[in-house]
Amino acid sequence: MPFEIAEDELIEILLKSSREEIALLLEDVHPEDLLDVIRQYGGDKSEILKKLPEEMLVNLVDQAEDEEKVELLNLLPEENKELVINEMSSDELVDLLGSVTPDEALDILDKIDDEEALEVKELLSYESDSAGGIMATEFISVKEAMTIGETLSYLQKEAPDAETAYYIYVVDEEEHLKGVVSLRDIVINRFDVKVSEIMHENIIRVPVTMDQEEAGHLFEKYGFMTMPVVDENDVMLGIITVDDIMEVLRDENTEDIYRLAGLQEGEIVTGSVSESVKKRLPWLFVNLCTALLAAYTVSLFEGTINKVVTLAAFMPIVAGMGGNTGTQTLTLIVRGIALGELTYENSVRVLIKEIMVGISMGVSVGIAASLLGYFWEGNAVFGLVIGCAMLLNMTVATFAGFMVPMALKKLNIDPALASSVFVTTATDVLGFFFFLGLATACISYLI
Amino acid sequence: MPFEIAEDELIEILLKSSREEIALLLEDVHPEDLLDVIRQYGGDKSEILKKLPEEMLVNLVDQAEDEEKVELLNLLPEENKELVINEMSSDELVDLLGSVTPDEALDILDKIDDEEALEVKELLSYESDSAGGIMATEFISVKEAMTIGETLSYLQKEAPDAETAYYIYVVDEEEHLKGVVSLRDIVINRFDVKVSEIMHENIIRVPVTMDQEEAGHLFEKYGFMTMPVVDENDVMLGIITVDDIMEVLRDENTEDIYRLAGLQEGEIVTGSVSESVKKRLPWLFVNLCTALLAAYTVSLFEGTINKVVTLAAFMPIVAGMGGNTGTQTLTLIVRGIALGELTYENSVRVLIKEIMVGISMGVSVGIAASLLGYFWEGNAVFGLVIGCAMLLNMTVATFAGFMVPMALKKLNIDPALASSVFVTTATDVLGFFFFLGLATACISYLI
Repeated sequence: MPFEIAEDELIEILLKSSREEIALLLEDVHPEDLLDVIRQYGGDKSEILKKLPEEMLVNLVDQAEDEEKVELLNLLPEENKELVINEMSSDELVDLLGSVTPDEALDILDKIDDEEALEVKELLSYESDSAGGIMATEFISVKEAMTIGETLSYLQKEAPDAETAYYIYVVDEEEHLKGVVSLRDIVINRFDVKVSEIMHENIIRVPVTMDQEEAGHLFEKYGFMTMPVVDENDVMLGIITVDDIMEVLRDENTEDIYRLAGLQEGEIVTGSVSESVKKRLPWLFVNLCTALLAAYTVSLFEGTINKVVTLAAFMPIVAGMGGNTGTQTLTLIVRGIALGELTYENSVRVLIKEIMVGISMGVSVGIAASLLGYFWEGNAVFGLVIGCAMLLNMTVATFAGFMVPMALKKLNIDPALASSVFVTTATDVLGFFFFLGLATACISYLI
Repeated sequence: MPFEIAEDELIEILLKSSREEIALLLEDVHPEDLLDVIRQYGGDKSEILKKLPEEMLVNLVDQAEDEEKVELLNLLPEENKELVINEMSSDELVDLLGSVTPDEALDILDKIDDEEALEVKELLSYESDSAGGIMATEFISVKEAMTIGETLSYLQKEAPDAETAYYIYVVDEEEHLKGVVSLRDIVINRFDVKVSEIMHENIIRVPVTMDQEEAGHLFEKYGFMTMPVVDENDVMLGIITVDDIMEVLRDENTEDIYRLAGLQEGEIVTGSVSESVKKRLPWLFVNLCTALLAAYTVSLFEGTINKVVTLAAFMPIVAGMGGNTGTQTLTLIVRGIALGELTYENSVRVLIKEIMVGISMGVSVGIAASLLGYFWEGNAVFGLVIGCAMLLNMTVATFAGFMVPMALKKLNIDPALASSVFVTTATDVLGFFFFLGLATACISYLI
């Protein structure tokens, strides 16, 4: 177990100890664990919060989820609230302001000092899903002419407030980003060395307008802990830290998985019935409409089904296998786009590969289905009709599974969104059409 | 753009410059960018590798994917190969050894010094998907009695080789983990302070046998850059860094997305046709078998379909809407399990919520479908049969979407694996059964 103190012990300490004892006993407890305990505490939470030392309150609110932050702040006495808000880092304040009413937001901006309020207002001007929307402005920067010794004394003053002290950015007089030195570089070099002598110059930087998911892929690719954010003139504006990026990537992954299944972002397992219904129902109605298209296709062949009723039993198989094949390709493509493995350069090669896969699998499954159909009905033509329809539909399925997400991406729509409804509509409608159409053409051999 | 030097410029420099010029010009180029250029270079890659300074080669191989490492090493002259292997960190060596033949592995173990070989052999004894399988042994630890000043001099000697120097672990004489000090703590404190005075003691630690995905969730939860790995006696064995964890989480996410769609891990968009077919076909055959079950259900009602052939057009709608509903619940549950939001404690509440959602959506969609059926056939009973079948199937769908992944989890099988085949089989078979069964019961009102 990662925890040194059990949760029930924690709650015991929080309820029974004095403020001083708590400060001493819980000094090294991670705020996330404290938060877990408070979340689960059924009684009056403000009783517990009142007993926490201020520093702990600051960390607690810092660590909380956006809406939780508001809830916790509202439970605090006014003077603690002001202190906590003033200690929050700029990116956390931005998140907080995004979760409150305009009135509450004004109240919060009122509480923080003017300089920080200005910074926060500037941060609010960036798109919330851009690098600017997730960066913090509390970074450490030094000028090129400074020595290691000077940097160290500067650090001793600034480090406690910075978002991270492990990278020190080197800027010129106009705040243009010139290089970076790591704290490791600083401790292993002599005091009289200039930072410009040891700094790394070719730094990978994030443009402030870059999409947060793209920034996330840069972190994944290069394995950085922190990246600098710059404006179009290379002026350093802030930093993004890997812990925020992990949250971004987790949310983007959830979004992709959800959208492939027709779920909307923001739904959680423990949500309410009415919210779930509101979020899922639109998708089901879209599906109902497209299903009608498939039903209409079937209805065109009612005469044929009337003559050979077993067709009704086999037609969902043909459509369903196409749907499965299409979903496989679709998922591979959506994930390939998300991970940056699929590019416009290799897309034609991938399309050809997918169609070849569709044909190969269509032949295998088609032969198996033909045999099944033959033994079921005792009619070789019936088997052949199923097999051919299967091959055609599975080939089309891989084509659709590739084209739909690529087209959505081209239109700047998230490829995960709505892809599967298009693909399964195609495999349903065409599956029924191929199967019942072939059956109609060969009807004299089937009855 | 994050890159200061364009790719074609890079290749130009690599091909035309001398070894010394390259060392100077490309000093700060990130190895990942160098790797990208080498990956895309169509000519003889060993020509480029020959020109790279040794330090760059080390970084390059370090950054490469597992199989790529082998490829790059085999392109190097023997003396460079030995040097690169000796400079690799223990976790990278373990990954490398996992990608080569036993003979090559012996050859590699032969090249590294005895102490490191011993460490690597020990690392190889851990499960590859456990914390032990991804940790590195190059961490920095000091004894409790050491002062900040002593720690700093020690760091100046050790930091260049360590995996990360930002956290210094404090251990007792038997290497038990006692605390941690950050490099930030060290630079902001006086030289004569003892590390034991400023260390954080309640550290969250990863047991060496913990599943790598679970370790990943600890990183996500606490926002750490590095976590210590300990054995069952709390002896410190290694560290895990967040960049390795991001890879773990990316792979686990891909695995979940893939498995929900019936894709196998390891498939990439740019893979070969034969490999894709080999990986996807088994899943399709499983689906073919379950589809037969659905076809068999339909065949039981051939008499009814023969009398009211429009049933054939509507039956895929009933089954399909159930499938969509089931997939929504299934996906929410699988993701909830993966993110740790769904626990055994809240599972009953979630199940009840999902069933309520199923009923609510079933009523809405059922009414819409009833009206559609009524207008299509001009028969109110026909509409009612569709509506009721839809309601029943969608309710069962949420139940199945919840139960199947939970049951798999209980059996210690990945809930994402095979869940969807069970759920859609249930919604297909039951969808057909409810719809055609109700139609059979009301047949006198339908003809």
